[in-house]
Amino acid sequence: VSGEFERIAEIRRRAVRRSAFVALGLGDDAAVLRPTDGYATCISTDLLVESVHFRLDWTTPELLGHKALAVSLSDMAAMGAIPRAALFSLATPREGSDALARRLYDGIFALADRFQVEVVGGDTSITPGPLVVDSIVVGEVEHGRELRRSGSRDGDDLWVSGVVGSSAHGLALLASGRRYEDAEGSEREAIRAHLAPEPRVSLGRALVERGLATAAIDVSDGLSSDVRHLCDESGVGVVVDATALPSFGTVDEALDGGEQYELAFSARPDASDAIHALARELSIPLTRIGRFEGASDDVLVEFGGTRSPLHPRGWDHFR
Amino acid sequence: VSGEFERIAEIRRRAVRRSAFVALGLGDDAAVLRPTDGYATCISTDLLVESVHFRLDWTTPELLGHKALAVSLSDMAAMGAIPRAALFSLATPREGSDALARRLYDGIFALADRFQVEVVGGDTSITPGPLVVDSIVVGEVEHGRELRRSGSRDGDDLWVSGVVGSSAHGLALLASGRRYEDAEGSEREAIRAHLAPEPRVSLGRALVERGLATAAIDVSDGLSSDVRHLCDESGVGVVVDATALPSFGTVDEALDGGEQYELAFSARPDASDAIHALARELSIPLTRIGRFEGASDDVLVEFGGTRSPLHPRGWDHFR
Repeated sequence: VSGEFERIAEIRRRAVRRSAFVALGLGDDAAVLRPTDGYATCISTDLLVESVHFRLDWTTPELLGHKALAVSLSDMAAMGAIPRAALFSLATPREGSDALARRLYDGIFALADRFQVEVVGGDTSITPGPLVVDSIVVGEVEHGRELRRSGSRDGDDLWVSGVVGSSAHGLALLASGRRYEDAEGSEREAIRAHLAPEPRVSLGRALVERGLATAAIDVSDGLSSDVRHLCDESGVGVVVDATALPSFGTVDEALDGGEQYELAFSARPDASDAIHALARELSIPLTRIGRFEGASDDVLVEFGGTRSPLHPRGWDHFR
Repeated sequence: VSGEFERIAEIRRRAVRRSAFVALGLGDDAAVLRPTDGYATCISTDLLVESVHFRLDWTTPELLGHKALAVSLSDMAAMGAIPRAALFSLATPREGSDALARRLYDGIFALADRFQVEVVGGDTSITPGPLVVDSIVVGEVEHGRELRRSGSRDGDDLWVSGVVGSSAHGLALLASGRRYEDAEGSEREAIRAHLAPEPRVSLGRALVERGLATAAIDVSDGLSSDVRHLCDESGVGVVVDATALPSFGTVDEALDGGEQYELAFSARPDASDAIHALARELSIPLTRIGRFEGASDDVLVEFGGTRSPLHPRGWDHFR
C-alpha cells in the first residue's frame, strides 16, 4: 500500500495543471471540476483487458497508455466534445508493476499533453490476473449541440473519416508475426493504427462548431456494427456503398474491422461542399459512403449493383 | 460481442432517469450531463479486484455490487457532494458472466435507488483473470464549499463518524470461516460493515450545508493512514486519543482497519455543540478523537498518558 501512495504521489507530480476547468486535481477523495457556463459535460469510460484487447508482447506499455487514453478521447470526438480531464484505474500484476505503470503513464501523459487533457484521478490495485486499464475521460460540449447517435434522418448522407480497416489489417499483421518495431511503410502504419490510434477530436469539434453533422459515432466495434447503432438509435435505414469505402485492406476488414476510431457521421446532403472543404482544411479524408433511407432494420450494403443486408459482425478482438 | 450489446440494452432498460442532471444516459458514445448552476462537479473512481479486495466465496454478487457503488459514494460523502450519476466498468470471467453481471447490477441498482443516482455509462469485457469492477461516481457540490483534505488547522478537533474497526473485524470473522448468511447479531453487523458498507452521504452534505467541517476524508485506508493524509495535505500535526476511539474491536483494528467508509473530519472547537446536535439528528455517532496541533509530521497517538508516533499501517486487504 505504501507503494500505492508513492505511485499516486509520482503521478501527481507529473500531472500538469491545464485550465480553470480543474479546481482540484489528484490527491483528494475526488477531483473537483468547474464546468464552463453554457457547456454540458460528457463522460465516457473504456476498459482494456490484457489478452482480450491487447497483448504485451505485441505492444509496448507506452503505446498501450496512448491507446487507453485515445479510445476515450475518441468517444469525446464522437460527441463533438472538447476533452478536459481523465482518470485511470489500473490493475497491474505484482511483478514489475511500478515500471509497467510508469511506462504506461509515459504514453498517457504524452497524448494528454497533445490534447491539453489533465489527469485528475484514478485508482490502482495489484491483480493476480491480466493487466486491466480503465480509462475515463471528461469533456465539454456546447449545451444541446452534442453529436448524438439518434440524429440521422431519411435523406442524410453517411460519411466516414480516414481509412477503415487499417487497424484490423494491423492486427492481422501482428498475428502473422510482424512487429511494430520491425515494420516499415504501410505495414507500420497499419500496425500503428491498431496499437496507437489517433482520436479525431479536431474533426468532432469542427462538426459541432460548423453544425455540419446530424449524428456521429466512432468506429470502435466495426463499421457494420456502428452504422447499425446509428440506424437503431435514429430509427432510419441506410444503404452503404461498398465500392466507396476508403479502405486499407479488404472490404471485410473495412466493414467489420473494429478499433478503427474513425468517425462515422450523418449530414444533410447540402452540407457536402462544406464537409469536403473541412477535409482539406484538417487534412483528414472525409468520404461519403452511403445514404440513410427506409426503415431502421434496412441496413444494407450495395456491391456490384446488388443490395444485401449488412450484418453486424462486430469486433471480437482476438477471434 | 452481441452478448455485450444485449447486456448494455438490459442495463439501459433498468437505468431509471433521475433528474435534469442527466441530459443523455446510457447508449451513446458518452453520457451528457447538465451541471447545476453554482455547483462544481466531483468525480472519483474505485477499483475492486477479486482476490485482492473481495472473494466471491465470502460475499454475493449483489453485496459486491452494493460495495462497488458504496465505496465511490463514500468519496462523494467525503467531499460533501450530492451523488448524481455512476458508471461501471466490469471485466467478468467468461463462465457465468451474464448471470454474475445481472446480480451485480441488482446490488448496484438497489443502492443507486436509495441515493437517487443514475447509471449513465460504463464498459464491459470478458477477462481470463479475476472479476474486476471499476466504479465511477459523479456528484455536485456548491462552488468552493467542497470538503478538501487540506483544510485542517492548528487547534481544530478531529472527529470520526460511526464506529471504526468493524469492517476489519468482519474481515477477520470471514477469514476465520464465519459467513454472512449464518452470522447473527454484532458478528453479522461487522461482516456487513465489510461486505456492504453504508456511505455517509447525508453526513457529508450536512457538514457542507452547515459549514461545520474544515476538512474531511473517508476512512478507506485505515484511520492511521487517512488521518496522516489530512495532516500531510493540511500541513499540521495531530494527537489522536486512543481511548476516545469509537471502536468495535481492538485498538489496532480501530486504527489500522481499512474499508470502514466512515468520515474523519476536522472542525473548529466552537462547532462542537452543533456537531453533537447533528449526530442526534442523523442518528450517526460522531466522536471527537483528537486535536490538530504541531508540525505535519507529528502524527501522534496518546494512550495511557504517553504519546507515540501513529504509524500509517495502511490496509493491505488480505494480509
